[in-house]
Amino acid sequence: MEEEYTDNSEGYPDNAGENTDNSSEESLGFSENTVFIGKKPTMAYVFAVMTQFEKDAAEVMLKARGKSISKAVDVTEIVKNKFPDKVEVTGIQTSTEEMQSEDGKSLRVSAIEVRIARKDGS
Amino acid sequence: MEEEYTDNSEGYPDNAGENTDNSSEESLGFSENTVFIGKKPTMAYVFAVMTQFEKDAAEVMLKARGKSISKAVDVTEIVKNKFPDKVEVTGIQTSTEEMQSEDGKSLRVSAIEVRIARKDGS
Repeated sequence: MEEEYTDNSEGYPDNAGENTDNSSEESLGFSENTVFIGKKPTMAYVFAVMTQFEKDAAEVMLKARGKSISKAVDVTEIVKNKFPDKVEVTGIQTSTEEMQSEDGKSLRVSAIEVRIARKDGS
Repeated sequence: MEEEYTDNSEGYPDNAGENTDNSSEESLGFSENTVFIGKKPTMAYVFAVMTQFEKDAAEVMLKARGKSISKAVDVTEIVKNKFPDKVEVTGIQTSTEEMQSEDGKSLRVSAIEVRIARKDGS
């Protein structure tokens, strides 16, 4: 019972997703409309999600890891509560990602994916 | 777009669940085996979950809010990865809870529920 997940991850960097070798064994699947949650203020990600839907995206995927997971849930709840007739959460999945620390050690960090979809007819 | 969720919540107090008026509009439902995630180390909650399963619980519910949500996902992943043949995540739900600040203002905080169930036959 000595396993401890790292607290050092402050979430995805701003270029997350650009050159990823996504080796996660579990995933809700691919979405071209993925918003990676990082260090920006919560409302920046709320705005990013709404921008995707305004561009007629059928769904948007939020991805976060480490301490940013709480922020991803904030984004989810704000979007859901602002537009209850337009969008809904259709899937939430947690997983474990392996990271390399600066000294080359392998670290584990928890991650979350939230799939938010446009409601039919909205 | 001025809505901001509070960052002040450090999770449930240690007596959470003892006298709750649970007014959350969304919930995975009742479980007598609920572990409220608060300020203790992650492994304390991993141990609490495993203790419930050793007492023959069919399922354990994790509840967390605010910054403790990340810790709840860590607990979920550690339990899942340590006992992949015995337990599985059967539901994850996010919600918004209303809290009172010290000066009487109403604050919103995000919350998460994770349902972990014993696999059939284990």
